[in-house]
Amino acid sequence: MRINVTDVARQLGHALGDIQTPAALLDREKLTRNCARMREHVHALGSRLRPHMKTLKSVDAAKIALDPLHGGIAVSTLNEARYFGERGFSDVCCAICLPPEKFDAAVRLTESGARLNFFVDDPKVALAAADHGGTFEIWIEIDSGEHRTGIKPDDPALLEIASTIQAGHHTTLMGVATHAGHSYACRTIADIRAVAEQERVAVVDAASRLRNAGFSVPNVSVGSTPTAIHAVSAAGITEFRAGVYMAGDLVQSTLGSLKFDDIAFSVLATVISTRRDRRQIVLDAGGLALSKDRGTKEMTHDYGYGLITNLSAKCVFGELTISEVHQEHGEVHNVPQSVFDQLHVGSKVRILPNHVCMTAAMYDRLLVVDDDAQIVQAVWSRTNGWT
Amino acid sequence: MRINVTDVARQLGHALGDIQTPAALLDREKLTRNCARMREHVHALGSRLRPHMKTLKSVDAAKIALDPLHGGIAVSTLNEARYFGERGFSDVCCAICLPPEKFDAAVRLTESGARLNFFVDDPKVALAAADHGGTFEIWIEIDSGEHRTGIKPDDPALLEIASTIQAGHHTTLMGVATHAGHSYACRTIADIRAVAEQERVAVVDAASRLRNAGFSVPNVSVGSTPTAIHAVSAAGITEFRAGVYMAGDLVQSTLGSLKFDDIAFSVLATVISTRRDRRQIVLDAGGLALSKDRGTKEMTHDYGYGLITNLSAKCVFGELTISEVHQEHGEVHNVPQSVFDQLHVGSKVRILPNHVCMTAAMYDRLLVVDDDAQIVQAVWSRTNGWT
Repeated sequence: MRINVTDVARQLGHALGDIQTPAALLDREKLTRNCARMREHVHALGSRLRPHMKTLKSVDAAKIALDPLHGGIAVSTLNEARYFGERGFSDVCCAICLPPEKFDAAVRLTESGARLNFFVDDPKVALAAADHGGTFEIWIEIDSGEHRTGIKPDDPALLEIASTIQAGHHTTLMGVATHAGHSYACRTIADIRAVAEQERVAVVDAASRLRNAGFSVPNVSVGSTPTAIHAVSAAGITEFRAGVYMAGDLVQSTLGSLKFDDIAFSVLATVISTRRDRRQIVLDAGGLALSKDRGTKEMTHDYGYGLITNLSAKCVFGELTISEVHQEHGEVHNVPQSVFDQLHVGSKVRILPNHVCMTAAMYDRLLVVDDDAQIVQAVWSRTNGWT
Repeated sequence: MRINVTDVARQLGHALGDIQTPAALLDREKLTRNCARMREHVHALGSRLRPHMKTLKSVDAAKIALDPLHGGIAVSTLNEARYFGERGFSDVCCAICLPPEKFDAAVRLTESGARLNFFVDDPKVALAAADHGGTFEIWIEIDSGEHRTGIKPDDPALLEIASTIQAGHHTTLMGVATHAGHSYACRTIADIRAVAEQERVAVVDAASRLRNAGFSVPNVSVGSTPTAIHAVSAAGITEFRAGVYMAGDLVQSTLGSLKFDDIAFSVLATVISTRRDRRQIVLDAGGLALSKDRGTKEMTHDYGYGLITNLSAKCVFGELTISEVHQEHGEVHNVPQSVFDQLHVGSKVRILPNHVCMTAAMYDRLLVVDDDAQIVQAVWSRTNGWT
């Protein structure tokens, strides 16, 4: 991903009113505060933070998110692993189960000097890793209730995988890891705390079983933004992996992970059509600019495809949301008449997304602003894709 | 968008089993047949085709889709307009209302020699175009029932916009255009035919009003894949704009726009976890690889987040669909026990998408195969983003 220098010149130092839309904005001050808050919380619990870069996929963001007590990051794809590895990050956890077909690609990444560690949840895959010849550090993924990937702490496969890894000449057991993604279905903080404890207990149990069987388990990792934020105990946990907390989004603010004003990511968009008779405004931000994620649909508050603010990220239009998206059109329905005095064709707005991981992935760069100011202070590249 | 040469070397000429996943596959033979069928249909109606490149965004695909009787294409963003303009396409219709803030960028595109024409639905925007100084060819967008953008054929603004364009020294009236996007809500072919006729009548009416008032209206344009395919009359229509028909998807096959076996686009994915006890398989294609489009949800047939086939695009697993997506995980629920004998960790499958425009946009290249064969015959770049 190469950014056109002329394009950057048209963005850097310019007011938001002059920026071509749609574009992705990142508030650096809010990002910095969100990162500091999570680090302090995790340190207060006596643990350390491995920031998950799957959301922002930006080396500049990673430098702000890094926990100096840990130094490692998590990623969701081998492409991200390469991007960060090439930029000097030496402990990169690819927090997903890799099939043996990806081992060659994983080895190529480690040849540049980075330590790449990844998840396994299947004895056959562990055997393939041990037989491969590549130097692999492996996490055994534990299912703490999400039922996506991972094995239960009492699954006989736990010890089988650990034995296979130990027997391999170039494979090392990194530890056990889990992701309590089912915390997103919670509707109260009490419920999230219960899931956080379930997450902790599952992976600590797995570590105990392994240690009782004689294995060394240096790392015990949990992670999801809601459970990390609301965890009250980190007993037995060596690291938290989380990522969405950095930028935040409407799902997270609705879940109670952060305040509405903490959301650091937004999409800059322009009004392209108004119909006062139909009480409708159309923006140049549609399904591609916002993603089709409807994460808040089943939550206590439904924000459609995103919430519209002014250029200072303030809700001056009441609760104005994107009602419908087409590929490049975002329709706003039931617009109050007063809003037609504020927004005309050409007016610019910001849109806060439901799910920042999905929305940010539509952009190859982040336009950096500071604390709701309206000048682009920096242009950060980000990586996308898989290969 | 620059493609890494080493990456291409790892894909070109290789069997699908050796390709890193997720990846976007395009069947060139199916694409070619879909394009020929639409051209022949439109020619039989006595009209011409302006293929809309918003789906594939690839110069190689555009060469196959082009109608030699027309020569022009449609696009959905200024970025696409630049991409195609720089590659020699001289009649590029940016089929969306541009706000005045984008006029400078539009002028920069025409400086490379391409003719860029775009939509307007607001007298103030027409005035801004006439006053701008740039050489602009303008379509007046008509609302034929979708109620997204555009004015009704009997809106007084119709003549006002035309007068303003005519009065401008560098603005020309290209014609009238509409998009019957509401055809996607139809559930029978008869209903689609009715919408196609409504679409035709609306734009022909607008052209008549303009001509009766003395304006020259050289072009009358309609477009949506369902209405283009099922239109029975093109009386008064000089061109059809459509795009999804080239690649096809599950929404289009469910609507009856093409046959299931005509779908030319699919996502190549790998099994990364299996749980026979939970009857669950997990693929490395999640919300980013497939998009979160749930276009078939409210249709007569719900395919979840996509339908799984074997590497020859055959439904050998019964109707196996992606039930749930996370960022990089696609969960398949209720997997029949027999499928666990066919699919293991590392097995590769193809996934047909709900909405190809959304899914293809997640990839910067298309791996080209011929007629369900399993060898990558070519690697086509595509463009994404807006600036």
